[in-house]
Amino acid sequence: MKRWFLSAVLAASFGAQADEGMWQPHQLPAMADELKAKGLEIDAESISKLTEFPMNAVISLGGCTASFVSPKGLVVTNHHCAYGAIQYNSTPEKNLLQDGFLARTFADELPATPGSRIYVTEAVTEVTDKVQAGLGKLMGQDFYRGIELAEKSLVAECEKEIGYRCQVYSFHGGLEYYLVKQLEIRDVRLVYNPAASVGKYGGDIDNWMWPRHTGDFSFYRAYVAKDGKPADFSTDNVPFQPKSFLKVSAKGVSEGDFVMVAGYPGRTNRYRSAGEVQNQFEWAYPAGKQLREGFIDIIKATAPAGSDERIKYESLLAGLANYAKNFTSMIEFYGKSSMLADRRAREAELFAWIKQDAAREAKYGQTLAELHKLNIRSEAHRERDILMGYMGYTGMLPTARDLYRLANEKTLPDMQREPGYQQRDMIRFKESMERLDRRYAPSVDKAVLLDLLERYAALPGEQHLPALDKALGIGESLDAAELAKTLDKLYANTGLGNKDTRLGWMEKSVADFKASEDPFIRLAVAMYDTDMALEKQQKAIEGELMRVRPRYMDAIIAFNREQGKPVYADANSSLRVSVGQVKGYSPTDGMLAAPFTSLEGIVQKDTGVAPFDAPKRELELIKQQQYGDFGTESLGSVPVNFLSTLDTTGGNSGSPTLNGRAELVGLLFDGVYESIIGDWAYDANLNRSIQLDSRYMLWVMKYLDEADNLLAEMEIVN
Amino acid sequence: MKRWFLSAVLAASFGAQADEGMWQPHQLPAMADELKAKGLEIDAESISKLTEFPMNAVISLGGCTASFVSPKGLVVTNHHCAYGAIQYNSTPEKNLLQDGFLARTFADELPATPGSRIYVTEAVTEVTDKVQAGLGKLMGQDFYRGIELAEKSLVAECEKEIGYRCQVYSFHGGLEYYLVKQLEIRDVRLVYNPAASVGKYGGDIDNWMWPRHTGDFSFYRAYVAKDGKPADFSTDNVPFQPKSFLKVSAKGVSEGDFVMVAGYPGRTNRYRSAGEVQNQFEWAYPAGKQLREGFIDIIKATAPAGSDERIKYESLLAGLANYAKNFTSMIEFYGKSSMLADRRAREAELFAWIKQDAAREAKYGQTLAELHKLNIRSEAHRERDILMGYMGYTGMLPTARDLYRLANEKTLPDMQREPGYQQRDMIRFKESMERLDRRYAPSVDKAVLLDLLERYAALPGEQHLPALDKALGIGESLDAAELAKTLDKLYANTGLGNKDTRLGWMEKSVADFKASEDPFIRLAVAMYDTDMALEKQQKAIEGELMRVRPRYMDAIIAFNREQGKPVYADANSSLRVSVGQVKGYSPTDGMLAAPFTSLEGIVQKDTGVAPFDAPKRELELIKQQQYGDFGTESLGSVPVNFLSTLDTTGGNSGSPTLNGRAELVGLLFDGVYESIIGDWAYDANLNRSIQLDSRYMLWVMKYLDEADNLLAEMEIVN
Repeated sequence: MKRWFLSAVLAASFGAQADEGMWQPHQLPAMADELKAKGLEIDAESISKLTEFPMNAVISLGGCTASFVSPKGLVVTNHHCAYGAIQYNSTPEKNLLQDGFLARTFADELPATPGSRIYVTEAVTEVTDKVQAGLGKLMGQDFYRGIELAEKSLVAECEKEIGYRCQVYSFHGGLEYYLVKQLEIRDVRLVYNPAASVGKYGGDIDNWMWPRHTGDFSFYRAYVAKDGKPADFSTDNVPFQPKSFLKVSAKGVSEGDFVMVAGYPGRTNRYRSAGEVQNQFEWAYPAGKQLREGFIDIIKATAPAGSDERIKYESLLAGLANYAKNFTSMIEFYGKSSMLADRRAREAELFAWIKQDAAREAKYGQTLAELHKLNIRSEAHRERDILMGYMGYTGMLPTARDLYRLANEKTLPDMQREPGYQQRDMIRFKESMERLDRRYAPSVDKAVLLDLLERYAALPGEQHLPALDKALGIGESLDAAELAKTLDKLYANTGLGNKDTRLGWMEKSVADFKASEDPFIRLAVAMYDTDMALEKQQKAIEGELMRVRPRYMDAIIAFNREQGKPVYADANSSLRVSVGQVKGYSPTDGMLAAPFTSLEGIVQKDTGVAPFDAPKRELELIKQQQYGDFGTESLGSVPVNFLSTLDTTGGNSGSPTLNGRAELVGLLFDGVYESIIGDWAYDANLNRSIQLDSRYMLWVMKYLDEADNLLAEMEIVN
Repeated sequence: MKRWFLSAVLAASFGAQADEGMWQPHQLPAMADELKAKGLEIDAESISKLTEFPMNAVISLGGCTASFVSPKGLVVTNHHCAYGAIQYNSTPEKNLLQDGFLARTFADELPATPGSRIYVTEAVTEVTDKVQAGLGKLMGQDFYRGIELAEKSLVAECEKEIGYRCQVYSFHGGLEYYLVKQLEIRDVRLVYNPAASVGKYGGDIDNWMWPRHTGDFSFYRAYVAKDGKPADFSTDNVPFQPKSFLKVSAKGVSEGDFVMVAGYPGRTNRYRSAGEVQNQFEWAYPAGKQLREGFIDIIKATAPAGSDERIKYESLLAGLANYAKNFTSMIEFYGKSSMLADRRAREAELFAWIKQDAAREAKYGQTLAELHKLNIRSEAHRERDILMGYMGYTGMLPTARDLYRLANEKTLPDMQREPGYQQRDMIRFKESMERLDRRYAPSVDKAVLLDLLERYAALPGEQHLPALDKALGIGESLDAAELAKTLDKLYANTGLGNKDTRLGWMEKSVADFKASEDPFIRLAVAMYDTDMALEKQQKAIEGELMRVRPRYMDAIIAFNREQGKPVYADANSSLRVSVGQVKGYSPTDGMLAAPFTSLEGIVQKDTGVAPFDAPKRELELIKQQQYGDFGTESLGSVPVNFLSTLDTTGGNSGSPTLNGRAELVGLLFDGVYESIIGDWAYDANLNRSIQLDSRYMLWVMKYLDEADNLLAEMEIVN
């Protein structure tokens, strides 16, 4: 594995050209000279130490990134990352989403959504050898189980320390494994969010777009027990005292300035094979886009704007729309690009290089062909699989299946259970069962499930699941009215819409389920054997992929190393650092995206109709040019959002964007439309991240929302 | 009138800030220092001399501008200015529009549309005193006739010299009058046009838009008789030898470079009253947009793409779409702007200033109120008037009316006839009768007229014209089917679709018309008295406006002069010069329009489907980076179009954009979408003209179309 570290050094000199790379913190010291040349003022070594400043101030919310900005556990993240918590606390009568929310005292702070977490990464340890020990000649599902068991053992050992959550992350598809240990703070409270007309300004229309004018920030606070240990919500809890926190810059950045971002990017696919690229762009994205758009239409039609139902689905709607647009961009830019041809050419080069050497040929010669075969197997029932996947977005069906799965898993010793159903998962499991109350409306759930089942029913016979067909009376030709009636009965007679009922089922036995008359429980029981068989098939393929892909990646890394190309692992939701600069770009010939937007752009865009309905007071402040302390001479206004070359992706949302002194100068919240496809292939000319400017955040806090208590609590520097 | 010249001097120092102003050439010497400071290298005095270089190389096509670019009468203008001529020579079998056309020898050059003219301005003489002498206390229609008679007399005197066309232009609504004397070249031939996929690249979608990639150029040649005098088309004619011609720059311009443009801008309305602004933007533009869009839909539905009918209507379609989009922008930016409030504030300031002084009060005090009353009168039947106006776009009805009007006018001595029906107009009249053959299809004409008549029939009774109602059987409620049948009969039985028949009617008497059974002739005869009565009413209002507006303008000019604001007359299709620089702009906060587009943008936009269907060979040349002699280092490519601050409007199309040495560096062909409203109020931040870059023109000529004969004929400089 030493190769890896060497390659990072090599990468340093080439990555400089492009700001490409999501680096693991331990890779940074080797890049110290380059980072300094780019503008890093603090020691690169310090960034690699997760328990020291600034990295111990960068935290994960699970899916989003955040950071501590006060010694009293104040946390800043994106508005869209706190969206669920804001929604959870909103009702039509007291709509925090619409009106904004500010706790002027600690006592006013509101519990976030059940299950909200703050993770503070404290250690990342390489465990490749431990994970791979004893796999021997195992294949398929056995290989998968071998890896899973090793991971569970490492996690169990790690989590012996109370208050910690541990997870093994696979890098390069299984070439390396790292055990990540995180303090898990369970009492998370909503402190402050601007009105949606600030925090979500531009909405889905501006999402992924530049120019942008979104005040995408919100504040949480982390609470722990009086002994400093993580604890469930209690009024006795006290604010968490982080070892470090970030200072917030009132001076901000200028065009060309160095910036870096630390966060938890979710997933990139820059090393995928041409076959995988083709399946994803020519089938999976178009199919996913269609399903999401249909899903959105159904929710909007069933839950009218302004209804309590709609509030329950706003968060899901936002997520669906976000990736519908993401997929649209993927498809558009794939069509314009030569990505597939480039990927094929790269593979051809790689395999020509492999063939040059007998040892390489022996080691890597068959990897691509094996990968290809596994992909073909994996795609065999893709039309059905995607529908089953989207059923996971509904409420009742996955709830029933999860509960029955739990009853089954509980018959096994803890270490043999499926991840997600172990003892360590029970708090989350319970919280997800509780949370459903604010995310579920039977009318909407039924309409969506009906649509998915109709699509399923229309699939060719060989894709059908006899158990599902039998349970719902789906025959060779679809009787849509009959199916609707069946669902009417399911929803009318299920008790799973009730929280206590759901929680009660968590304690029941397999026999209890089998004896139940609840129609969704009965459906889950009827499908169980099929579900397990499908999962087994899938794991067999996954196991093979986990066996084959590391060898393929090993070949790519060796090849790239020879060519002096940057080598970093695809994003996998683990902590990464990207470095870059404040910079505009040319989205099309003849047009330039300026690096900053300004307050005046809000007035320009404003129509008075959502999502372009800034608060009247904000519009007045802008028209009066009340820039206060945050106007800049170069812009003649207050900067609102800015562009950077930072290499990021989903999961980086909420990440603190830092200057060379590691002061918070912005919050990363999006990438531009043209860079979405960057998840698959980085383009230095188009890869731009969008940040909320710290000066706009401070301006809104000071002049619009008068959040003086928080401004006083933070350390604001010039 | 001396005030005028003084004010131009004052303007010089203030205009510098904004590049605002469409200057009369005689105003330029007073601005010499400023022009020199901006980058003019030739003597400002020389630009004021219309018979010397460079102004004698700048010519009018009537509605468009052009310039001589060789000693053999070679003329360059926009593709869209030569569109009619290209269309006239196109058939489905030999489609010059689609495929492009290049005459490799003089003998291959094709006659342009009948009526095509090249006007070379040779003298501009102020005639205010002569026009206004003898008006005394005349009012209304009498005032109008007094002006008209004076103008006709001046024109008749001027046109005694054979081969010249003269016209009196009113400036500032009648405050000044100038007699313009132009050599009128009648043998105009099409020499070269690139394929529409170059010359009209981007089509209606990109029209008025940036970024732009349109190769909007074409070449004509002027022919005269062997004696050098203008003559009708004849194979005996020889190329006209202009006194000067423009050199074409292969070096082009860079960002910030000085540019100027000489041309014939059609109309601006920067001094219109608030009431006129309101009527125009809140009624006339919305109504015009709706009619144009309806008109376009009907033509497209009736004349399918690819049909001979469609070719006949392409030119009209382009014009309709052009202004439909223009009106859309007007309405959009009016809604965003404070134009009406600004105009009202300006009027309030003006009248406060007038009231400060008793003499001013006596002279100007009532002007705005009088103007307002006249506008109210003028707008009384605006709904009907606009429909009648759009009927002028059809074929049969205006042809019949024009012919019958001619028969009536011919009963009068020439000097008493309506302009357009005098002896001097007969060649044009005849040409317009001939030209109809390639611009008229009965099916389309009928459909459009039916639509307009249905709209007319739906108007309230007081707007109806009894003669029209009676002639077409239009009752209180519309029987659309009956009206359609009536029109069917009209079109089935008219002989006016035949060119010889139309020309024959030019020689007939009023009695012949009255005895005719031709249904369109009968309709024209039936409506004649009404037409004349309406015209008389309109002239009475016009006469009053010509009496009142000069006083209002006199007040504005005096007021602006005191404030040091630039004073130039609204555009009126007469020769003007604008000066500015090559410069991008910010269309919206956070976005910048770069000053140049490049060849690569064509590939980016190309979909293979019109209007984004560049020739395959062009795409290949670009992909191979075959920039030849015309690539620039700063762009790393060949510039295609560029932006400038030049103050221009419709009619400037085809104008040569010149560098400080008066070399042709571009062809002006459009303004950006945000600057359309600039016809009513200039905004230095948004007012941008779009030019074809001379380097792209030369690149297309040299590498794509291999127009070596023309490249050799022109003088190309570096």
